[in-house]
Formats: sequence, C-alpha cells, structure tokens
Amino acid sequence: MKFIVLAEMEYTARGPGTIMLNIHALRTQRQTVISETFTTDPYIKVEELIAAQGENRLIRFEIAEAGTVKVTYKATIDNFCEIKDFSQVDEIPVAQMDQNVLPYLYPSRYCQSDKLYRLAWNLFGHITNPFEKVATLTNWINKNVLYLSGSTNAQTSAFDTVTEQAGVCRDFAHLGIALCRALTIPARYITGYAYQLKPGDFHACFEAYIGTEWVLFDATRLVPLNGLVKIASGRDAADTAIANIFGNVTFDSMLVSCDLAGERFEPFYYRDGQLTGLSYP
Amino acid sequence: MKFIVLAEMEYTARGPGTIMLNIHALRTQRQTVISETFTTDPYIKVEELIAAQGENRLIRFEIAEAGTVKVTYKATIDNFCEIKDFSQVDEIPVAQMDQNVLPYLYPSRYCQSDKLYRLAWNLFGHITNPFEKVATLTNWINKNVLYLSGSTNAQTSAFDTVTEQAGVCRDFAHLGIALCRALTIPARYITGYAYQLKPGDFHACFEAYIGTEWVLFDATRLVPLNGLVKIASGRDAADTAIANIFGNVTFDSMLVSCDLAGERFEPFYYRDGQLTGLSYP
Amino acid sequence: MKFIVLAEMEYTARGPGTIMLNIHALRTQRQTVISETFTTDPYIKVEELIAAQGENRLIRFEIAEAGTVKVTYKATIDNFCEIKDFSQVDEIPVAQMDQNVLPYLYPSRYCQSDKLYRLAWNLFGHITNPFEKVATLTNWINKNVLYLSGSTNAQTSAFDTVTEQAGVCRDFAHLGIALCRALTIPARYITGYAYQLKPGDFHACFEAYIGTEWVLFDATRLVPLNGLVKIASGRDAADTAIANIFGNVTFDSMLVSCDLAGERFEPFYYRDGQLTGLSYP
Amino acid sequence: MKFIVLAEMEYTARGPGTIMLNIHALRTQRQTVISETFTTDPYIKVEELIAAQGENRLIRFEIAEAGTVKVTYKATIDNFCEIKDFSQVDEIPVAQMDQNVLPYLYPSRYCQSDKLYRLAWNLFGHITNPFEKVATLTNWINKNVLYLSGSTNAQTSAFDTVTEQAGVCRDFAHLGIALCRALTIPARYITGYAYQLKPGDFHACFEAYIGTEWVLFDATRLVPLNGLVKIASGRDAADTAIANIFGNVTFDSMLVSCDLAGERFEPFYYRDGQLTGLSYP
Repeated sequence: MKFIVLAEMEYTARGPGTIMLNIHALRTQRQTVISETFTTDPYIKVEELIAAQGENRLIRFEIAEAGTVKVTYKATIDNFCEIKDFSQVDEIPVAQMDQNVLPYLYPSRYCQSDKLYRLAWNLFGHITNPFEKVATLTNWINKNVLYLSGSTNAQTSAFDTVTEQAGVCRDFAHLGIALCRALTIPARYITGYAYQLKPGDFHACFEAYIGTEWVLFDATRLVPLNGLVKIASGRDAADTAIANIFGNVTFDSMLVSCDLAGERFEPFYYRDGQLTGLSYP
Repeated sequence: MKFIVLAEMEYTARGPGTIMLNIHALRTQRQTVISETFTTDPYIKVEELIAAQGENRLIRFEIAEAGTVKVTYKATIDNFCEIKDFSQVDEIPVAQMDQNVLPYLYPSRYCQSDKLYRLAWNLFGHITNPFEKVATLTNWINKNVLYLSGSTNAQTSAFDTVTEQAGVCRDFAHLGIALCRALTIPARYITGYAYQLKPGDFHACFEAYIGTEWVLFDATRLVPLNGLVKIASGRDAADTAIANIFGNVTFDSMLVSCDLAGERFEPFYYRDGQLTGLSYP
Repeated sequence: MKFIVLAEMEYTARGPGTIMLNIHALRTQRQTVISETFTTDPYIKVEELIAAQGENRLIRFEIAEAGTVKVTYKATIDNFCEIKDFSQVDEIPVAQMDQNVLPYLYPSRYCQSDKLYRLAWNLFGHITNPFEKVATLTNWINKNVLYLSGSTNAQTSAFDTVTEQAGVCRDFAHLGIALCRALTIPARYITGYAYQLKPGDFHACFEAYIGTEWVLFDATRLVPLNGLVKIASGRDAADTAIANIFGNVTFDSMLVSCDLAGERFEPFYYRDGQLTGLSYP
Repeated sequence: MKFIVLAEMEYTARGPGTIMLNIHALRTQRQTVISETFTTDPYIKVEELIAAQGENRLIRFEIAEAGTVKVTYKATIDNFCEIKDFSQVDEIPVAQMDQNVLPYLYPSRYCQSDKLYRLAWNLFGHITNPFEKVATLTNWINKNVLYLSGSTNAQTSAFDTVTEQAGVCRDFAHLGIALCRALTIPARYITGYAYQLKPGDFHACFEAYIGTEWVLFDATRLVPLNGLVKIASGRDAADTAIANIFGNVTFDSMLVSCDLAGERFEPFYYRDGQLTGLSYP
C-alpha cells in the first residue's frame, strides 16, 4: 500500500540542547521510502544515525540557542504486508531459535516478563498453537485493559498495566510483549504511523516471533493491521522513543497524520478463531 | 595478564530442557583466549552463538532426558588493560556521541535511570570531569550500600537498591549504571571472572563511556580492577545472564575460580582524588 | 471448641533490645482464655498492652544484656464459631456502613486496593451476593496463586502477588483483603493458631464484613475454618506482626502448635455453590 | 489564633452515589470550633461520623440522583499552639512508648518505612536529639525534593518520592513520616487548612512523637507552622482523604481558604540550629 505520512513537531529551547528524533519511516526489504523530506525551521544541520541492527533511523541535531524550532517530516511510503495461515506453525523451542531473536526473550525496562511467568502460564499456557496463543493474549488485553488517555505516564510498565488495567497504545504493547516473553515467545515493540488512527498520533503495537517471522499484533484494535508504516522496532519504548531531548528544551505540540496515496484500502483485523496472521517481512 | 579460569556447574533435569550459558571468556582485541575446553558430562552436542555486536559468546545445548548434567569450562586467557589519566577528558555532549553507545543511555530492566534523574543530578550534577563524576558515584554506592549476600533476588533493580541500600555485586553494578545514564553518561553491565574474589564466583561490575572508551568501575571494591576476565557486556543482567534455563531443569551447584598463570600481579584500585582510569580496550 | 495452643520462640541478643510479641490468644465475647501461661527464660518482667480497639494483646519486654531468651506461651482456649446462611444478605452500601468498619475499606501497606479496582471489578463485579463475591475471589486466589514457602518476603504486597502468583498464607490473605476493599467490602487481616496446620506455624487469613458481621475466609484452604484461635486482627500484617524486634536481637527458632482439647472435631470448609459462612462473633 | 476557614466543593453525579468528606475542623482540647456551617446545594441530609480515636470528623451523605451538588463548609476556629525547647528531650525507647503511639511506628500504604531503614540510619542515625533528628530529615526533604504540582498522583508513595525527588505537600509529608518510622520515631499524617498557603488549598504535613507530645513538621516550608487548622490525623493519606467518593460521581472544582479573624499574626518557622518545636496539644 502507498501512504503519505506527516509529522510536525514544535519545540521551545531556553538554551542549547540536543534532540534525537525517531520519526523517519524505516527502510526495509518490503517498505520503500518513495520520497521524504525533513526540514527544520529555522534551518539546523541534522545527522542521520542508522542503527547497526537496522531497527530505526535516528535523526540528531543540536539547538544552539534559545528559540522555537519546528520540525516537519513528510514521506511517501510503499509497503507490503503478507497474510498467512499459521494453523500449522508450531512453537519453536528455544534450542532452535535464531540467535538474533534471543534478546527479545529477555525482560526489559517496561516489559518485566520475569514477573509474569505464572500469570502468563496460568492464563495461556494450555494453548499449543503459537499464533493462537498470542492472538488469545492480545484479545485478553483488549478485553481487560481500558484504553484511557492520560491514565499512565512515561514510567508505567507492563507490571503496572497487568493489574491496573488502563493505559494507552504503549501500555497495551508493553503488556503484550511481556506476556509473550513470559511464554518463551520473542516479542518486540513497534512504533509507526497508522492509517485511520483518530485522533492522528504516532502508534505503538508489537510483533511476536512465530515460526520464522515477526507477526504483527495490536491489542488496542484501534486501527487495521495493514495500515501501518513502521518507524522503529526495539525491546520496548525505551529503545524507540519518538523523541529524546537533552538540555533545556521542551516539547510544545505535534501534528501527525497517515493517509492513503490513492489506492483502495481493505481493512484487515484478526478474527476470533482464525489463525491468519499479518507480517511485514 | 594471564589467568586460568574455571567454571563447573551441575544441573538436574527432570525432563527435556534447554540451557544457554554465558560463561565463555570474551574474545576481544585485547583479550586472547589462549586455550579453552568446554565439556559436558554426559556428552551433549553444544552450539556456540556469537552475538552480532560481539558482546558475548552464548553456548546453547539441549538436554534430551531426565538426569544430571555437569558442565566444565576451563580456559587460559591473556588480556591487557590500559591505565590512563582522565583529568583532561571532558564530558561528551550527546550530540557528539558515537551512535553505538546511545543504547547504553536508555533505561533497562534493572537500571531505571528515568526514575533517578533528580537524585543523580542533586548528588553528582555539580562535578564537571566525567571520570571524577563516575568515580564519585561509585564511591557513594560503596559507602552507602551494604554488601549482604542473600539480601536481594533476581528481580531487584537499581530503583530498589538506591533506597534499600543492600545487595550483591549485581545490584551495585545496576545502581552504578542507572546513575550514569541518569547523568547522560552511557554505561553497561560487565560479567567476568575476577582474580582474588572470595569466595570464588562470577563477578559483575560496570563500564562507563568516558571520552572515547569504556572505563571500568566496581562499586563493590571487592577485587582489583586489573584482575578481570570479561565474559559479557550488555545493558544489564537481563542481557548477560550466566545461565538461562528452559524446561524442567534446576541448578544444583557451581564452582568458579580465577587464578594467575605465573606472573606477578600488582593490584590496581582507584584512589580518591586521582583521575586515573582503567579500561580493557 | 477447646484448643491447647503453644508457641515457643528463641532469640539471641547481642546487646540490649526490646521485643513486642503478638502471640496471646485474643479475648473476645466468644473466645475465652480458660488458662494461659507466658514465661521467659531467663525471667524478664513483661508488660501487656491491650489495644484500645481490642484487636490484639501485645506483650512488650526489654532485654537488658546479651544472651539468649526463650519465650513460651501456652494456653487453653474455648471458642465458638457461628455458621450461617448468607444467601439473603445483601451488600451494604457505604452510606450505611458502620463507621467502625470504614478504616477497613482504605488501602494499607500490603493491600493496595487502590491499584486493584479495575481488575477486581472485571473479575468479580458482576456477582451480586456479597458472600458469593468474596467466596469466589477466595477461590480465584486459591486456584491461581501457588503456595510456595520462601517465594516471598516481608515486603511482598498484594500488588506483587496478584501478578507473581506465588506466596504463603500472609500473601494469600493480603490479596484477598485488597480485592475485597477494591470491591467496597471492608476486610481485615487475622492471625491465629490453626488446628491441623502442618507443619505447625502461626497462620494468617482474613475476614470480610458482610451484612453486619465479620465472616472468615482463607484462600490457602490449608486448614478448616473452624479450627482457628484468633490472635489479632488489623489492617494487614503491619498491624499484626507476630514479633516486632528493636535493637540488636535476632530470631533463632520457633515451635508452634494447636491441638484439640478433647472434643470431636468436624472440619468445616466452604463449598462451591453454598452460601454458608463462618464467623467468630 | 482565630481563623476563618472555607471550603467549597462541587460534584457532578451521573447516578446515585455516596460522598464522605473529611473537611471539618477537628475539635480538640486546644482547638475550638467557635461556629461552623455545612450546607449542600441542593439540600441533602448528612451524617457526622466521629472516629472513636478522635482523629477526624467524617461527613457522609448520599446523592440520590444525577445532578450537581455544591458543598460549603465555613467555620471560625480558635486554636493554640505551644512552642517549646526540645534540646533536653531524649529519644523514648520503644520499651517505654505509650501504646497508643505504637501503630504510628508501623509502615502504611504510602509510608513504607520498612524499606527505608538503611537509608534513614545512614543519613540521620548519628543524630541523638530526636527533635534535631526530625528537623534535620525535614530539611533534607525540603532541600532534595522539588515541589512540583502535577508530578505525582494518588498512588505515589514515600518509596517513590525518596528517589524521584519531586512531589506535592502530601508526598513531602509521606516521606517525612516514613523516615521517622524507619528511625523508630512514631509519626502521623496531618491534614488542615493553612494560613498563607497560596494558592488556597488543603494542606498536608506531619507530626512526630517526641518526648510525650506530637510535634509539627512541614517539609514543604510553604506556610508558617502556627497557621494550621487541623482537619484530621492518621497513618497517612489513606486514612485522611479529603473526600472518598463511591458511585458514578466526579469532582468538578474546589475553593479553599484560611484567613485570620482579626489578630496580629507572627509567622513561626523552625530555624536551623534551634531545637524549638511547635505542637498543638
């Protein structure tokens, strides 16, 4: 699908500072950046840092003096997702897992899977098909956790959300990841632009490693799975912050959108009882 | 220095399982593995997984059936550390940091630097020299945190330790890392064999990125800094677990040692007021 | 029922200290202390502090110098419990609750009911009969939380246990209390001697205020409900610690027992589907 | 001193509900309620619940149907505080403490003194005079914790604040209480109307039990100590909530003031190096 994505952000600096942004669309085998522009007003020289593991495209720039800075990113993206039947895909024993996915089994800042073992096994341990297992836990989150803007903050973690049962997309994703890892299924955090997300904002969801691929899950059910433009993947939100700000600089406002570039769009959601998963290979 | 390191571990399996060990000495530019043997009794085929980032050497093997398994690792290592004056090394602004060290600025499972900002700045923010800053916070941990075996567990984090003020080497390292990151200094967790550690055990300490290198710090002060044989580095103990066990397998016992292979050893510790740091380049 | 209870505890003092014990059987309308002896070896003068609210009988004594102290409490108790049908007892709105029970609605150190609202309502909010509600949540704890000695410590709270799903009687009781309070049902912590508890130990369970009385629940199901000799009630374990020790004194060992004094004993447990509750009026 | 206090609060009910308010000035030996009026608009019959321990005056009322409710409390209060030299008052050993103050030694929901022992002893254990000890820890809080509206929420506890070092009056008080209890000094939470508090609001501070009386401390230093009209005391904010709301009722707005009724006011604050304390006997 072709999407036009836009992010505008404004900052006020009261002195020198550094901003690192993680808002560029990822370039992958199946996600092409047809065109993109990134501008700052006033003009500032920026540097792109491409992560060795190819998980994000960081933009870093220095603000030399007090003032406001407006950042605009606009891109046209073409990406492909694959929809596939996972009913015959068995769980991979850890003894056969690709070593590159092993770090996604470990607990991280916001996904304390080490504290969720018994709960995860009690709730989902009986399910044998791995896709069904992750789909079921995703539904469980959707059913039990209330989407409530402002109910959580930058320190809220999966350990909080599993009990407090309220949060935003970030919290839904962290809980999904923590439950997967507790079940010995590698899982990672995904940020992106999401078509049909209202109001416009960055989105977060997660991928679980099933068979030999990263399959997308979104416990919020706010948007179709096939309308995502990936920005970054990582262990959790600590790795994939939209912005990291250093110095006396504050965030003022933001405008984010994701629109179709012409084509007809057939929204795709998982359905109960169907083991059909979507991945962005 | 040349060291002979030894690790013996015994496990009891009540059924099939998988063990991943992270006990092999790291091979780096300045740490040579002169010889090493790794055996299991009974014999099991093992696989070595070398992390893409070169941070560890994972050994993975499957236990097919119930029984006991004894693992023995023995190696002769030659490594070099560098001792250097950091009194003229300034703090690197985040705008100029090597992108490979940026992930070591982010909070992680056991190092919630995001919760320690104010405390870290209140206590150490006034110190300008980065080596002195980290040396001072290391001393502060040594002075305020009681080394007390059994006082903490696998879930204890820097956020606990900063207040509860008791722990073991792992907890001392996590707190050091969290304080560094809160001060915008990249820091990573180090596991290793340590000469003169009594009783013999694996050791944990941390490195802070100062100027253009990773400098070693050990808030426990239990062993000289120049007697370390590195096993792994990572964001925290979640990345560098000595053993990850899957299936119905339990750990029984362990024997760890690190001895000099012939040379004379001059123990090196940091001293108050001296800005002389040690690194393993 | 008549019970003979015994508690022996040994302490080592390395210097002066104070011990407060909460091991005396409570005297209530329906629990009579037929006889009791409390001795210390060596002899120390002790003081009994009777709480204004009648919730416990604290014994306080000073240890003047280094040495070991052995404490022995032995008592013969006669108490009565009432078994009653709660199928027609409705929930009391907070507007009509006795003001003396209101403090048992508030969160406390180990029972953070304020963090469990959504979870409690999601799981049990649909049940209208208050006895059934508490019986159901007690069963839920019994089914989901593993009784595992040594899995928790003196700092473990209901917020931990609801996710980590392992603990001992204290943790089971704290979680029961927290869920009740989250559902606007007053609940309090009970310590006691328990007949048929193996190995012999102090026991903890909880009471919920239903209709106009405190009804007993025990999520561990380790002992019959009608074999309890109450020691204390309070908001949680912080109020009812078996021992509070001040100074350089350490606990060495303990022997606790609770035996029948002659009568025939018919063990009473709640059964699924029956709304018959037991209280010690 | 004579004060006129006023509290106006507005609520919107979307259905039936119950409100319990804790905004009435306490009646004590030295605090006289000269006159008071409490009205609701529309008129609702209210009930006053006087706590057995005399720690608060709860007002409870039911809202029968959807609508807005405005509550107005206005009172003229006359109270006396005592200023006294504590330089010769020694610490009371727990063996001699009045049993009524013992519950204020135990940890509570927001004051986890059990987790702060080592920190408290490391920082303040060397101070022998108990007034000086509490005054010093109060100053330490004032110096290290930033008063920052909106930085905390209803779940923030002393264990958070000691590290995160930001909060409001409630958090300052909780931390003071937790540190006192960790040092074996009974401490309790105080809510009140405070003269010269800007903007007008309810205030929270704490009292430590020194010698034979409750002495007032306020780590915020926002208001003079002699301008307080007490509303309630308790173990922490869980016991003394300004409002507890049950049912589908939401808080809309509040207006609080505390003015002098005629007299000349000489503000009293503690000064470094002076062991002169203020209490409301």
